[in-house]
Order: sequence, then structure tokens, then C-alpha cells
Amino acid sequence: MEDHIRYDPEQGVLFLLDQRLLPAREEFYACRSTDDVIYAIREMVVRGAPALGAVGAFACVLAAREARNGKNREAELDAMLGAIAKARPTAVNLSWAVSRMRGVWRDRRDITLDGLIRVWEAESELIRREDIEANRRIGAFGAALVNDGETVLTHCNAGALATAGFGTALGVVYAAFGQGKDIRVIAGETRPLLQGARLTAYELHREGVPVAIVCDNAYALLMQRGMVQKVITGADRIAANGDTANKIGTYGAALLARAHGIPFYVAAPLSTVDLETSDGAGICIEERPESEVTCIAGTRISPAGVPAYNFAFDVTPAELIHGIITDAGVLRPPYADSLKRALSREGQRKPPCR
Amino acid sequence: MEDHIRYDPEQGVLFLLDQRLLPAREEFYACRSTDDVIYAIREMVVRGAPALGAVGAFACVLAAREARNGKNREAELDAMLGAIAKARPTAVNLSWAVSRMRGVWRDRRDITLDGLIRVWEAESELIRREDIEANRRIGAFGAALVNDGETVLTHCNAGALATAGFGTALGVVYAAFGQGKDIRVIAGETRPLLQGARLTAYELHREGVPVAIVCDNAYALLMQRGMVQKVITGADRIAANGDTANKIGTYGAALLARAHGIPFYVAAPLSTVDLETSDGAGICIEERPESEVTCIAGTRISPAGVPAYNFAFDVTPAELIHGIITDAGVLRPPYADSLKRALSREGQRKPPCR
Repeated sequence: MEDHIRYDPEQGVLFLLDQRLLPAREEFYACRSTDDVIYAIREMVVRGAPALGAVGAFACVLAAREARNGKNREAELDAMLGAIAKARPTAVNLSWAVSRMRGVWRDRRDITLDGLIRVWEAESELIRREDIEANRRIGAFGAALVNDGETVLTHCNAGALATAGFGTALGVVYAAFGQGKDIRVIAGETRPLLQGARLTAYELHREGVPVAIVCDNAYALLMQRGMVQKVITGADRIAANGDTANKIGTYGAALLARAHGIPFYVAAPLSTVDLETSDGAGICIEERPESEVTCIAGTRISPAGVPAYNFAFDVTPAELIHGIITDAGVLRPPYADSLKRALSREGQRKPPCR
Repeated sequence: MEDHIRYDPEQGVLFLLDQRLLPAREEFYACRSTDDVIYAIREMVVRGAPALGAVGAFACVLAAREARNGKNREAELDAMLGAIAKARPTAVNLSWAVSRMRGVWRDRRDITLDGLIRVWEAESELIRREDIEANRRIGAFGAALVNDGETVLTHCNAGALATAGFGTALGVVYAAFGQGKDIRVIAGETRPLLQGARLTAYELHREGVPVAIVCDNAYALLMQRGMVQKVITGADRIAANGDTANKIGTYGAALLARAHGIPFYVAAPLSTVDLETSDGAGICIEERPESEVTCIAGTRISPAGVPAYNFAFDVTPAELIHGIITDAGVLRPPYADSLKRALSREGQRKPPCR
């Protein structure tokens, strides 16, 4: 599944498969402006850290197209890029993509806006393709960790839909399944927005991988009963020491895995690593509207007047993570060393901002 | 709140506040037969182990009224009592109530059916009142464990609605709140049936106790942030060694509490203790329909063809429980001793089957 983020250069429109409507309806949401993309990101039309990297890049293209009509083109474009980078605070990939696009622009300061649009279109497409390739490498490295006959528990959606394609945690599953291994997935539903029950179940079922869903509060029982052999999730941001922000519930799943002696892995491309953030304490946790918790499918579930907490992410301390499955191999503790080494090798191989 | 289970002796009807409809609508469900009560129990019109004790007793009265029209009255009544005891497998209180009613019957073998109905009506009313009194004692004992300024996390609903009145875990909260302590409650929503978001929030808000709801997967984050000082839940069945069955998610909450050094307490009347079951391995865990997980508020959330696990309960090992707050005091480990001692004292004070 690599076609849920589509850019049409003729019309200058970014089409996003509307993940709010899955699995009931497959509809594309058309973004014709930077604001459209920011709205789509905030409203969860598209989500998933690596997917946001690609979407953020295409958003820069739309920003450049809009800037053509502006009076103070450079300043307006600059402001729009700043807004894109901040559309969701926890995932690092948005600001990563914007700073990569800025680098391309900086290197060609005399380029016309039309020229920049063409260069950025190519760069966005490159980011999209690179993400898919990175995920295929993550899958290949991670598949070696999943044994024939095992059940993988995953939380939220770190699949094709959370990336430009193939997925990170689910990339590992797809790769192992593609090797003929008899594996099964248990997808935690992931309240409040149910990305596990809706999106993970949707894409695994579509690809023929056996999957069952459970409520998030069943993880401990499943582990106690020996129904889970590996826990693998994605990541929204990985700090320099390996502390990992991901969807709310990931930290709890990691603690429960440790209590049952089950390995817990994070699967993410190196673009998710943020060496500027030394540890998890420095990661901003987005709080989203209470109504996501208090209303389900348009029905209010709790009494009026009762507040709800809706932290969208949590941080799993590095010490709970058995390995970080990246596009540069499976990194092991201490992550302060292994992450830095992997990023330094990556930097030598391919400078991020040509 | 002590009026959600009402028996009308004139009509021979048991009225149950329909908990499936709360908090949106307050409607009573009228049970005119044993089958009506069994349906109400299976469909979660009423739930909560101590509430099921009182409801099970009144169900015996309805069974005796029905038996009046039968050919083989004793055998038919006996079969109906057996069906009541098995309406939900995990909670011990149904079979506890039925065996108490059987004891009353056994002691008066020559009684007429009309006489038995009157005696059982009085016994059911006694069970109802005893449960409320037991909960007030639980509240008084437990309140001493909750300090001014603390936040209590609770899972599912162990409140007035889960009992004949006042509640067990929430009885502790009501008692501490009634003593003027500044306490707050965080209610886990408790998927799939949302008893926390619907029922716990409803009754605490109605009583003026500050309450906020969260998704079940947020517990670890809240504990990590120091937002929870005590975890208190109810129990559906407590084995002889202290292993405790309660709503799915309780075991995970207890493990997370231990990982954060937060005391985890179970609050339950001694009628929830089952000395016949030596440990948690002997407790039958009810599996409920997949549709409770795959559909919310009538809307299907997951793709057709994807199965769901729906274990309704889990078992928390005794070693994770700091104390069991009972109507006979706060019991401490080792529970094999403290439970047996408390039940033996209780037996001397008041034989269960006069």
C-alpha cells in the first residue's frame, strides 16, 4: 500500500486517503493549500510520524505555489514553512521534512519560485520514495527478530498508512510474513481514535496477515496467558538516549512486556531520531480535545460536566526497549552510542540537505 | 444511591435501573420472571459482583413465584436456582446468594411455596440492606488509607451501581470525601462497555466528587507524571490465596502501579471471597461477544472479517495487592491467613445460612 499519499503536479493538489473514515469508507481528502494540509494533519486525516514527513514536504510545495501570489514572497513562504513544522508537536518528522526543504532552498538562493516548486516537487517525491525504501529495510532487519509461529502485539498503527508505504512495525510483520513465516498480529484498538482497530486491522487484513483486535486494557491478560511473543510499535520521536515518544499506551505496553519477560521493540526510520533532544523529558506531549475521549462515533459516552484527560502520546524510557529496528539495522543499548553512530554513518552516506 | 434495585412485592416485579443506558437515560428495566433477570444479568442491565448478589436473591423470589404454576414445583424451582447461579460465571456473588437462599429453604423444608416466597422476600431485602451496610463499613475502613489531597485511580465501576448501594472502591471514596478530605478520582473508561466513563463518572459527579475520565491506556502516563497516589478497584471473586478476578484491565493497572511504587488496593465485601477456589488459576474468565469490541454505540469500528478477543475479566495475583479493604477491616498479606481468619470471625458473628 503506497498510494495513500498522492500529489498531482498539474493541479497542485495533495490527495490524502482520509484515515478518519477507514475502514468504513475509502475517500481521498484534497489539499489545495498549506492550510488544508495543516487542517488535515491536526484533524488526523493523515497521521503517523513518517507519513507526516512526506506530507510535510508536499505541504512545502503547496506553500511555494501559494507564495507566488504574495507580495512579500520569501517572508510569506518562510511563515508558512514554520506553520507546517508546528502542525503537530510530538512527531519530529514534520520539522525534519521542513528543515530538509529549507536546506534545498538555501542551497539555491537565486532560484525563481517556479524553479523552487519544481525542485521541491522532486525532493518531496524523493522523501516519499526514500521513506518506503527505509521501511523495506526496517522490515528486512526486523523480520529476523520474529520467529515462525509467533504472535506480535502492536499498538496504534505503524503500518503503510502511518508512513509513505509498507510501514515500520507492520513493515517488520509484512517482511516476516513475506518470508513465509506463520505469524499472527494482535492489534490493540488504541483509544481514543482507534487507529489499531480501524487502520492496523484494515491494512493487515487487506494484505492477508492474520490479525485480531483487542481493547487496550487486555494486554496484560494476553501476556499472562502466553498469547504474545513480541511487542513491536512505531515511534513519533526518539531522543538521543533512546527514550521514545509514541501513541499513548505504548509506555504501559512496554512496562507490561517487561513484567512478563516479553521483548519490546521500536521500529522507526533514523529520520525519527532527534539528537537535539537529549532525553524523553524534553519531548512535548500533545494534548488533544476532550471530545475525542468523551464522544465515540458521534455519541457522548460520559456525563456532561465531567472532564477528560487526552494526552496523545507517552514516552517509553530507553531501558524498556530491547532494540530499535531502524533502516540502518537493529540498534541495541546503550542507545546514546548506537543512535549517534548510526546517524553519523547515515550522514556520511547521504547528506540530509544537499 | 440505594434505589437502583427495587422489588415490588405486590406485583412480584424486580425493577433494575438499566445501566446500559446511563448516563444518557435513567430508565428502569422490569423483570417479571427468572428469565428476565438472567437476561438482564447477561446483557449488563445490571452488573457488579455485590449488586448481582442482591439481584440473584430477588431472582430466587421470582423463581419461587413462577414455580407456583408448575407441575413438579420443587424440581422446577431447583432448576431455576441453578440457572440463576450460572448467569455470569466469574462473579462469585450470584452463586453465593443462591446458596444462601437454598440454605433458608433447606431449614424450612415443610414450608409452602407461598410461605417460602415471603421468607425469601425478607431474606432478599436483608441481603440488600446487609450489602449496603457492608459497603459503609468498607468505606469507613478504606477512608483511612486515602490522604487529603490525593487522587485515586479506579477502573470499571465499583460504586453504588455495582452494589446494592454506596459501593466498594467508590464507597472508600465517598467515605473519605464525606470526612471532608480533598480528594479527586480518575476513572478509567473501561472498554469495551465503558462502565468507568459512563457509570463511575455518573455517580461520582452526581455526588459532587471531582472526577475526570481517561482512556484505559493512559494509566502508565498518569502514574509516571505523579497524577495518581492510590489505585482502588472492586473484585468479582477473591480466591483463598488473595488472587483477585476483576474487570479486564485491573491486572495491568496493578502491574503499572507496582512499577511506579503506587499502592494498589482491592475493596470488596467478604461475600466476594471464595475459599473453595484456592488461587486465580481456578477462576473461570468469562468471554463475551466480539461485537462488544468491534462495535461502539452501534457503529462498527473494525473491518468485517477481523476477529476480536473479549475476555471480560482478568486475575490480579495476590502479590500485587497492598491490601484488601473488606467489611471486616483492611486485610494484609499473606491473604491465605488473613482471609481465612476474617471469614471465620464473620462466620461466628453471623452464620451465612440461618
